[in-house]
Amino acid sequence: MKKAVVLLSGGLDSATVLAIARSEGYACYCLSFDYHQRHVAELDASGRVAQALGAAEHRVFQLDLSTFGGSALTDASIAVPQTPSEGIPVTYVPARNTIMLSLALAWAEVLGANDIFIGVNALDYSGYPDCRKEYVEAFERMANLATKSAVEGQLLHIHAPLIDLNKAQIIQRGHALGLDYAMTVSCYQADSAGRACGTCDSCRFRRAGFAAAGLADPTRYQA
Amino acid sequence: MKKAVVLLSGGLDSATVLAIARSEGYACYCLSFDYHQRHVAELDASGRVAQALGAAEHRVFQLDLSTFGGSALTDASIAVPQTPSEGIPVTYVPARNTIMLSLALAWAEVLGANDIFIGVNALDYSGYPDCRKEYVEAFERMANLATKSAVEGQLLHIHAPLIDLNKAQIIQRGHALGLDYAMTVSCYQADSAGRACGTCDSCRFRRAGFAAAGLADPTRYQA
Repeated sequence: MKKAVVLLSGGLDSATVLAIARSEGYACYCLSFDYHQRHVAELDASGRVAQALGAAEHRVFQLDLSTFGGSALTDASIAVPQTPSEGIPVTYVPARNTIMLSLALAWAEVLGANDIFIGVNALDYSGYPDCRKEYVEAFERMANLATKSAVEGQLLHIHAPLIDLNKAQIIQRGHALGLDYAMTVSCYQADSAGRACGTCDSCRFRRAGFAAAGLADPTRYQA
Repeated sequence: MKKAVVLLSGGLDSATVLAIARSEGYACYCLSFDYHQRHVAELDASGRVAQALGAAEHRVFQLDLSTFGGSALTDASIAVPQTPSEGIPVTYVPARNTIMLSLALAWAEVLGANDIFIGVNALDYSGYPDCRKEYVEAFERMANLATKSAVEGQLLHIHAPLIDLNKAQIIQRGHALGLDYAMTVSCYQADSAGRACGTCDSCRFRRAGFAAAGLADPTRYQA
């Protein structure tokens, strides 16, 4: 069975990616991060999703990005916007996907896995630069110069199966694979019970996605 | 004063790089990692070097790479070789420079720094793939697609001023800048007092470098 490392946040996108990777026959080694994010309920969700979808293993890596701050998700003094903003919003976390992919690369090399899955998408998203196809391609190219495995001919492939899908298409894809989105948490400021605010960017994309997909939204909202 | 993030291990190479960056007028934000490496004496050295060279700030980031293992430096059950080996040795740490550069990238973006310095070199080294010029260039290219800063026109430059120097030339460069190498620890298995084994790859390159440079070796050896 081919091994893959799957970056798993506990949100809608990465859960869909895990369902896709499992449907393609990969033994999935799921990697989540406690990066001192505001929405730690997401991490609880990652454990539920990994178990429900039959991950081979699930690890939560400790990584205190609040050391650097610079984002509403890692600095408690910066509020999460409740309305859409111009440009890249303050929920952008500096270099987050690069850091997470780097650690996935390390684990993949140790596991002997040549495949990493990541749930980035460049439609119905917040304009984060590290969610674009050209970024993912550049990371893959760099990774294939970085490792002993690559030097020895085991080239790494980064799969971003959602990259060209809008939120409704992502939800339809997961639904077709039998994924229960009630397990997932997308909200940037979910409460400790995993209930969503309904107003942040992430909630709005998610809610609109279910509506456009013509599917009932299983999200539990606050109050 | 231009800001730069300098990756500082506490070894000979990165200390030289810090001296170079300071001589070029950068305010240096030094980043070290407690990655559960065998040679934690190196970390003590990083603090001494940062202070002696007038770093603007020095941070030690916690990053438990022993979670993944796969290297003699992060897995206590894999011995550090005492003789040169064929190919890339077991002291290679999967994706280490990619992980460290990623975190440097995050800090640089928050600081508003467009420069990162790293002490990789591809002569008198152990053949680690992430020490080569083509790797550094690929990381820089990826980084300039990854960040909000780059999207806004603040392009990142990764400086690897040692990349084409042999160990003797590196030592001569640092010596000319007044760097006291007695502060640095290169050994992969230095004892808690910072004394070197004298036989690992890193010790051998260092010892030969001082000899070829025609300079006294200030390294304190065990026994």
